[in-house]
Amino acid sequence: MPKNEMAVNAQLLIRAGFVHKEMAGVYSFLPLGLRVLRKIEQIVREEMDKIGQEMLMPGLAPKKTWEDTGRIKTVDVLFKAVGANEASRKKNDAEYILNCTQEDVITPIAKQFFTSYKDFPFALYHIQVKYRNEPRVKSGLLRGREFRMKDLYSFHTSEESLLDYYEAIAKPAYVKTFERLGLGDSTVIALASGGDFTEKYSHEFQTMCETGEDTLFYDEKNNIYYNREVAPVKAPKVTYKDNEMFPREDVEGKGIIGVDELALYLKIPVEKTTKTLLFETDGGGVIAAAVRGGYDIDEGKLKKIVKCKSLLLAGEETVRKVTGAEVGYAGLLNLSDNVKIYMDESMKGRLNFEMGGNKTNFHSVNVNFGRDFDEPDQFYDFKVAKEGDLNPETNEPYKTFTTSEVGNIFPLNTKFSDAIGYTYTDENGKQKPVFMGSYGIGTTRVLGVLVEKYHDEKGMIWPKQVAPFDAHLIDLRLQTVDGRKKAEEFYNQLQKQRVEVLWDDREDVSAGQKFADADLIGIPVRLVISEKTGDKVEWKERGKKETRSLSVEEMVRKLR
Amino acid sequence: MPKNEMAVNAQLLIRAGFVHKEMAGVYSFLPLGLRVLRKIEQIVREEMDKIGQEMLMPGLAPKKTWEDTGRIKTVDVLFKAVGANEASRKKNDAEYILNCTQEDVITPIAKQFFTSYKDFPFALYHIQVKYRNEPRVKSGLLRGREFRMKDLYSFHTSEESLLDYYEAIAKPAYVKTFERLGLGDSTVIALASGGDFTEKYSHEFQTMCETGEDTLFYDEKNNIYYNREVAPVKAPKVTYKDNEMFPREDVEGKGIIGVDELALYLKIPVEKTTKTLLFETDGGGVIAAAVRGGYDIDEGKLKKIVKCKSLLLAGEETVRKVTGAEVGYAGLLNLSDNVKIYMDESMKGRLNFEMGGNKTNFHSVNVNFGRDFDEPDQFYDFKVAKEGDLNPETNEPYKTFTTSEVGNIFPLNTKFSDAIGYTYTDENGKQKPVFMGSYGIGTTRVLGVLVEKYHDEKGMIWPKQVAPFDAHLIDLRLQTVDGRKKAEEFYNQLQKQRVEVLWDDREDVSAGQKFADADLIGIPVRLVISEKTGDKVEWKERGKKETRSLSVEEMVRKLR
Repeated sequence: MPKNEMAVNAQLLIRAGFVHKEMAGVYSFLPLGLRVLRKIEQIVREEMDKIGQEMLMPGLAPKKTWEDTGRIKTVDVLFKAVGANEASRKKNDAEYILNCTQEDVITPIAKQFFTSYKDFPFALYHIQVKYRNEPRVKSGLLRGREFRMKDLYSFHTSEESLLDYYEAIAKPAYVKTFERLGLGDSTVIALASGGDFTEKYSHEFQTMCETGEDTLFYDEKNNIYYNREVAPVKAPKVTYKDNEMFPREDVEGKGIIGVDELALYLKIPVEKTTKTLLFETDGGGVIAAAVRGGYDIDEGKLKKIVKCKSLLLAGEETVRKVTGAEVGYAGLLNLSDNVKIYMDESMKGRLNFEMGGNKTNFHSVNVNFGRDFDEPDQFYDFKVAKEGDLNPETNEPYKTFTTSEVGNIFPLNTKFSDAIGYTYTDENGKQKPVFMGSYGIGTTRVLGVLVEKYHDEKGMIWPKQVAPFDAHLIDLRLQTVDGRKKAEEFYNQLQKQRVEVLWDDREDVSAGQKFADADLIGIPVRLVISEKTGDKVEWKERGKKETRSLSVEEMVRKLR
Repeated sequence: MPKNEMAVNAQLLIRAGFVHKEMAGVYSFLPLGLRVLRKIEQIVREEMDKIGQEMLMPGLAPKKTWEDTGRIKTVDVLFKAVGANEASRKKNDAEYILNCTQEDVITPIAKQFFTSYKDFPFALYHIQVKYRNEPRVKSGLLRGREFRMKDLYSFHTSEESLLDYYEAIAKPAYVKTFERLGLGDSTVIALASGGDFTEKYSHEFQTMCETGEDTLFYDEKNNIYYNREVAPVKAPKVTYKDNEMFPREDVEGKGIIGVDELALYLKIPVEKTTKTLLFETDGGGVIAAAVRGGYDIDEGKLKKIVKCKSLLLAGEETVRKVTGAEVGYAGLLNLSDNVKIYMDESMKGRLNFEMGGNKTNFHSVNVNFGRDFDEPDQFYDFKVAKEGDLNPETNEPYKTFTTSEVGNIFPLNTKFSDAIGYTYTDENGKQKPVFMGSYGIGTTRVLGVLVEKYHDEKGMIWPKQVAPFDAHLIDLRLQTVDGRKKAEEFYNQLQKQRVEVLWDDREDVSAGQKFADADLIGIPVRLVISEKTGDKVEWKERGKKETRSLSVEEMVRKLR
């Protein structure tokens, strides 16, 4: 077992010989694992063939492709490929991009072939390997530096047609796919950020999974699941005994910066502290954003509020200029006039709270609205949602769920077609913008999620439709030459009848070890033959206790 | 048509919409092309499943994997992957290797699972994408910076077992595979270099193909094909009128370095000139190697003769030291004593020949053995073989063939197992070295070669077993609503009967254009239906002229 492999899916898959870990986030699929991956991808393929045409785009792209869409600079998990040694660079000193997704590649292809309104709508997809320069990967197959994914791209003459396809075609195809994969019951559709592409939401298919990396906030009233990043939340009120304003003080606290450390130092609850961050926007301005201690700032939410494309934490020099202090002591008092202030709603109605002193090493305590600075006309919600936060509509805490994202559908609108000037000719000969959508399913991730969902203390429990084999055969007659011959005949007979059976034909392994390995590998049906079973076969389903004695014909019938 | 796309395979595949060129050596497979690639890979898979187990190794590897085998420095087409932009490198400033072949990856996996003599022999394979930092790629799908390949690796307890598997199992499987791919008649097995792995030859499956990048030299007497790199050749004699030694002279010829230019300048035949190169060996010595003008030096052949691992062209300083002249004027006269001299057999028996003067800007003419320097005891064969060269055994010129390598089988011996200390335990509990072989088939290259082999002036002509569809349907009844309806019914009927048919249902394209496109796309059978054909179908095979009128039942039967 590789060190630091904490995820259950990787632990079991490695132990049972389905995968081999090459490095964090990169796995080889051994024969058993590849059989499962193939079945998953075949199900995805069959459902996607109903709504689009399969093709295959490469991993390498010329830099120009990613420069044309501007994404070469902004995608922060992008890899490039360059010669690995002097001899290689001497032969060809070029740089190429390793695609982490293929919008930049498919758009020019579509532009070449489909330009008349008559050609639309259409969709193309592929199932292919992707590369992402992920900093930390510790969820086994749930997050990879190299992983396999189905990505489909749809093309439309209007936003309406895009949304139509999205709702009436892609979404049902996805629901069907996850049903067939055995994840139907535990997979929900969640609203997520539309990124830079749209003001609207994107949709994620999220599977309930304790080891998942996402948290969904469930709005029971409206039956909506929100990804944490877009859940509209209200901070629960925290009340204290003090009900009048205390005198404001500046307290020295050199080098004490984090809110938890600060709360301890000042002997106040963390909710009395404030986290203030300064950002530079792409418009060139500086803003200050403040949340109640205990919350973090969600830059995605904040960007939408500020209406800017990018937010960068202000550099040391800017901080010094607008606060008069070193980094770490920023508050909202006495800030430069040209700094626009945004306050999260968790700031509302606070009394006697702490805030950076805008003076190196100093923190202001017992700060109060009205007396020390004006309460703003408007509060916002730009905090990272936390378990326990309230649904603003009902004032009740959200139910939250830990999940893993197995698919997403994303309205790209005209982001990529605009970037490369892809238009179509309408009925009147006019050039109009092309609307696009993208639709992903991580096939290797699905494999990992299936293990997370379907296992017990003994090992994995594969749903029949993706199991590496239909049956796991343990023949206990191998000790004698005659028994071995009979066992081989039986196995060959099953092969002829096209039953997918894994035969554990090891001779130097005990029956007990074979039973344990069968449970670990998790094939749906275990077949045992021994001198005792006569001309019948012992049938046991993985995850169930009872065994049955079946004739060979009955067994084959049931397996089919 | 992309500029600079000279290869017939790429031209036709692009024109017919099978592939889309992303950059030199990198193609997207469009739906038609992917269908062909899939069929090719399925044939390869079926044949390989008989001799090994399928798995799937990744594209990325940690650097350590390639450091362990030492190949990180020596493989001159190796890519590495690094963050493509500042944000990416900031998140993860690591470097990974992009595998161009997987010996370095499979050996540690095998080491983990198979260590007892009882486990051997075994073979594992995968069909996967490969990346190579090729400097120039201009042969379409025959040479890629990204390409797909099947690579199988076999593991053995002895060299004998390896050679046995190689001859009795791998070679027949390959012959069968190429037969099924439609390349059986035009594919031969050629001897090629064993590289650093073995003194013996490796074997290449080479398909006769005018646009191929390889040249085979055919030894008719022994019925052996040699790759150019290992063909043992004798230079044909060139004789001139002069039959006595002329006085040697040093002639000034500043900056005249290439043999052709020099021959013109000196007004002598190029065969009278000499090419002398100086190399530094990995042992630290310097050698001089000389061939008759008109030949090049094959470093692979020379390395075996010198018995060294690497040869590097001597640097300027070394050249100055051992010749007393600047680069470009090296000859064999008056060289430093510690330079070992090797002469190709093309030097044998020459009279009044030219040679670098070992004096800047000077060339010696009318050099002669015996008088000016000793004829060596031994001549060698280290020239790059040329068309017209003689088979030393028969003194007859070789027949030569232009070919493309579609597969190879390579005895790796203990190169990789030694590098990582992979041994097995024999019957007596002793640790012994593991022997390995590797066996490749380039599946995307096979696709390109099929086009090169099977096309005419109208387009491609696919062998049935790899054709994207069984039949190409042109229904000329699309002009009326009723006709269109009938056409759709007919198509749906074929779909139900699981005939793989491509229906050209474009309404705004002429019949002539459709016929031309059918020829271009090259599906084996063209079906035409019109008002004239009645309830029959016109059947025409691609590449043949005659048409036949068949009933629908007969047509379906023939297509199956």
